Amino acid sequence: MYKGIVTPMITPMGQNGEIDYRATEILIDNLADFGVDGLFPMGSTGLFPMFSTDEKKKFLGFVRDHSKKIEVYAGVGSSSTQESVELSKYTEDIGIKVRVLMPTYYIKPDEDWMYRHFSTVISAASNDLFIYNIPQLSGSWISESLIEKLTREFSNVKGIKDSSGDMRFFSRIIRHKNEKFDIFQGQDDLLFLSLSIGASGGVCGLSNISPYITNLYHEFSAGNLEKARKIQIDEVNPLMYAINEATFPAGYYYAFYKMNGIKGGYRAPMVEPTTDQKKKIDQELTKIPKKQ
Amino acid sequence: MYKGIVTPMITPMGQNGEIDYRATEILIDNLADFGVDGLFPMGSTGLFPMFSTDEKKKFLGFVRDHSKKIEVYAGVGSSSTQESVELSKYTEDIGIKVRVLMPTYYIKPDEDWMYRHFSTVISAASNDLFIYNIPQLSGSWISESLIEKLTREFSNVKGIKDSSGDMRFFSRIIRHKNEKFDIFQGQDDLLFLSLSIGASGGVCGLSNISPYITNLYHEFSAGNLEKARKIQIDEVNPLMYAINEATFPAGYYYAFYKMNGIKGGYRAPMVEPTTDQKKKIDQELTKIPKKQ
Amino acid sequence: MYKGIVTPMITPMGQNGEIDYRATEILIDNLADFGVDGLFPMGSTGLFPMFSTDEKKKFLGFVRDHSKKIEVYAGVGSSSTQESVELSKYTEDIGIKVRVLMPTYYIKPDEDWMYRHFSTVISAASNDLFIYNIPQLSGSWISESLIEKLTREFSNVKGIKDSSGDMRFFSRIIRHKNEKFDIFQGQDDLLFLSLSIGASGGVCGLSNISPYITNLYHEFSAGNLEKARKIQIDEVNPLMYAINEATFPAGYYYAFYKMNGIKGGYRAPMVEPTTDQKKKIDQELTKIPKKQ
Amino acid sequence: MYKGIVTPMITPMGQNGEIDYRATEILIDNLADFGVDGLFPMGSTGLFPMFSTDEKKKFLGFVRDHSKKIEVYAGVGSSSTQESVELSKYTEDIGIKVRVLMPTYYIKPDEDWMYRHFSTVISAASNDLFIYNIPQLSGSWISESLIEKLTREFSNVKGIKDSSGDMRFFSRIIRHKNEKFDIFQGQDDLLFLSLSIGASGGVCGLSNISPYITNLYHEFSAGNLEKARKIQIDEVNPLMYAINEATFPAGYYYAFYKMNGIKGGYRAPMVEPTTDQKKKIDQELTKIPKKQ
Repeated sequence: MYKGIVTPMITPMGQNGEIDYRATEILIDNLADFGVDGLFPMGSTGLFPMFSTDEKKKFLGFVRDHSKKIEVYAGVGSSSTQESVELSKYTEDIGIKVRVLMPTYYIKPDEDWMYRHFSTVISAASNDLFIYNIPQLSGSWISESLIEKLTREFSNVKGIKDSSGDMRFFSRIIRHKNEKFDIFQGQDDLLFLSLSIGASGGVCGLSNISPYITNLYHEFSAGNLEKARKIQIDEVNPLMYAINEATFPAGYYYAFYKMNGIKGGYRAPMVEPTTDQKKKIDQELTKIPKKQ
Repeated sequence: MYKGIVTPMITPMGQNGEIDYRATEILIDNLADFGVDGLFPMGSTGLFPMFSTDEKKKFLGFVRDHSKKIEVYAGVGSSSTQESVELSKYTEDIGIKVRVLMPTYYIKPDEDWMYRHFSTVISAASNDLFIYNIPQLSGSWISESLIEKLTREFSNVKGIKDSSGDMRFFSRIIRHKNEKFDIFQGQDDLLFLSLSIGASGGVCGLSNISPYITNLYHEFSAGNLEKARKIQIDEVNPLMYAINEATFPAGYYYAFYKMNGIKGGYRAPMVEPTTDQKKKIDQELTKIPKKQ
Repeated sequence: MYKGIVTPMITPMGQNGEIDYRATEILIDNLADFGVDGLFPMGSTGLFPMFSTDEKKKFLGFVRDHSKKIEVYAGVGSSSTQESVELSKYTEDIGIKVRVLMPTYYIKPDEDWMYRHFSTVISAASNDLFIYNIPQLSGSWISESLIEKLTREFSNVKGIKDSSGDMRFFSRIIRHKNEKFDIFQGQDDLLFLSLSIGASGGVCGLSNISPYITNLYHEFSAGNLEKARKIQIDEVNPLMYAINEATFPAGYYYAFYKMNGIKGGYRAPMVEPTTDQKKKIDQELTKIPKKQ
Repeated sequence: MYKGIVTPMITPMGQNGEIDYRATEILIDNLADFGVDGLFPMGSTGLFPMFSTDEKKKFLGFVRDHSKKIEVYAGVGSSSTQESVELSKYTEDIGIKVRVLMPTYYIKPDEDWMYRHFSTVISAASNDLFIYNIPQLSGSWISESLIEKLTREFSNVKGIKDSSGDMRFFSRIIRHKNEKFDIFQGQDDLLFLSLSIGASGGVCGLSNISPYITNLYHEFSAGNLEKARKIQIDEVNPLMYAINEATFPAGYYYAFYKMNGIKGGYRAPMVEPTTDQKKKIDQELTKIPKKQ
């Protein structure tokens, strides 16, 4: 069973745009302090499409080596099935237990293309795999029928992360949750709602920079629903609205660098948030209790 | 000045999904017979996102070597600015005169990100560059203001290929056409209309498999507008509607293999057209006059 | 304070398409049995755009007269501000306490147009008014800033019904809930989630034909969250998916006629559900416990 | 055969929002001077949804009586099939030769609903009818199959006005043009293109305020294609871009009042263009040659 809070990790960069491994250690330390249950390197927030296959492998390996025993959910997404196969085999080779895969993108796949992509990559390695539905970026929806087919045919398909933001869709797929298939919410502002309707957990970008998400999850798990609801409405959402004033995911990078006093960078084509955007983010960051 | 018909080349594959260079020669021979004015390898119809950087370089080099003196418009698009820079330098190194670049995709760029991507890649090499607007696949529009800024700042930005399918947008950007900046239509069913309003030419997928497109262009250029209009409505459009019954661009690959008796392949995640789809395509292919 | 379950009433019709007042009494009797807290005649489910101003007035008056003391939320929506003003004055004249108004539609209003429409209609009568956000039908969103402006300027603006289906938007507007402004969910499959995040109640079409909605609300209000969640997932949603197989709102009309043995009609342009659609609806209707 | 330029008339209003019949005569005089071939009262530009059935009838009758022998294309659109039937019968009673009808709107019709709406209204009167495709306002597309079915079954269905702005769709439906069925373009900036591909004419809003549209049509009809193209790019489009800075159709009303020195009005919910918007419109109006 997979559950709890998984962090779709940013990929910290130096001012030259190269991956900053020292800052990555600081990030993982923070995440351990926040009490997250999973590290998800090379996801959308991690800007995986901007990195070469070798850079992806090196970062996945580094996170596995410095995971402080937190489960690693390795991003193996790509617009090339072959690259996803290569990354999948690599994650198995280095002992990562679970992979995360979205449909190919740019060229819009139909349901047969999607099935061919998923079945090829799933069977390229024996470790577990999470399906990743993020139509606003990939350009295509993962249907209920495809979820049913993949879970029927592959025992190592263990769950889905839905980042569509559509709770009507989430209310449909929640019926597929069972002891072998978990359902995670990928949008921070829908975490409380998703837990309320039965989600296994959340894959939430704000957990890169604040304990709000894990606090919400822990209050909810302890049955303090009103507390959890308040954290969602009064802490998580305002921080998310401020962060997303900047073009995704630049706000997350700025907030991380600022919270940890790091002179970080923004690899092209990403552009640093504007001064106004930074001000709005700073206003919310000041409300986050400092690390003891 | 760039003008005429440029073929967004398919990337022929063997049944193992690997690039079939023998079939690529057959394709180029056909294009020379059809009288195209340009070869555009590694564009969307060429499925560039499915290939590794090395495969892209090798294919670009091969087309340059076998171009039969037809201008090569090298696709250097990627979701990674760094890969586009690397490909750009390579095209310059091997003497290709013009590159084609769309915005990064998956992570949605704003206008500042787009400017950073284009300016970085444009200035990475001195050969010419065509901007490529294809919002339905890249997920973002190239605005008139960005076109104006890039053409103002970079003398080697020589034109735009618009595949949006929106003639209201095309009617706006046509005003930017001058002796240093050409406007190409990227949708086959809008070629006649675009030439009528002043386009420099077309980048049309059907030119991979039939002379209809070059016939249309030559009739139009000769002033035979009614003939050109009839080719558009009675030959080009029906073939396009049939080909696009299959999920883009699988229909183009099937038609090429069928027209040339090649046992071609479909690299994952692409799936071969269904039997019904093949029948509809075959009906239209039979109308294409055989090579003399 | 407005709260609980409000039924967006169908407008029962005879086989000639004329309003069937006898069947309307049967409907209201059912709703009283189900324990709804409000009757909302001439909303979207009530097909208000298909009726003349006189027909609307007559139906509003009839429902007021036969409301069995259930609060009447009178639909006064129109593509004409003048008609909404006329209907508003009429509702006040006949003692209806609260009106419901969406933006004008077909011609897309901007925020100034919307403000002019709402302010004109709100101030045309002194009874209360609910704002109605239903972008998928009206074609325009009601923004948070417009909600704030209207509630600031008009003391009789008492709440909003959001039918957008977007829980990210609902999570934003829930912050505007206070003792003078209530927030209702307009989509049946989001009722449990909306109550969980703090909604005042729901305006749910299925309450026309089944007690599921009021059961869910009563269990939730009694603190039996798991029971309420199960009613949502296992009873409300499957019924909604079946009903919405037919083009909205024909499924609701068929189900009502079938549940009550009425030979009802479908005024043009509405068309009766197909045989297949009826079968799927019937399967779900059989699960609804019969009236004692 | 129907052809040429038809004006989708604005409905001039006094400052109290009531229809200004004196200004309507001035409008029709202008249109006769511009040499339009048809008057289309109570279309989208005429804001038909804002008027009562009686107001519509009165305006249609007035235009018929003051048409200066120009063909009247009477708008009979509504969200209520019954109102369209009533208006249709009225147009026949007062001797209007052709009606214009779009699908019902707000409640989204499927193809069966649309067929029921069109067949009911078409057969309610024997005069001709034009189908009106305007998905961006009505919310639904008229498919090629529905066009084929209606033209097959009703001899008085004589043409279609397509305002979708999609030339790929226009290129498909142009194949249905024959001596009994005409195809009109409803977007001013696509008139030249549509005439080039074979359209019968245009239903163009700018013909309310300038001779550009009729000039373009007359040059095209005379075979002066380059002149016609230049009028489109250098005169029609810039005027359209300026007018549409204001929320449709307020810019047309402002331009008409300004060109004719009329103290006109804007019935709620319409709002007058802003000062900035007026400036941009004025800049273009100054370029329109004054009436001799």
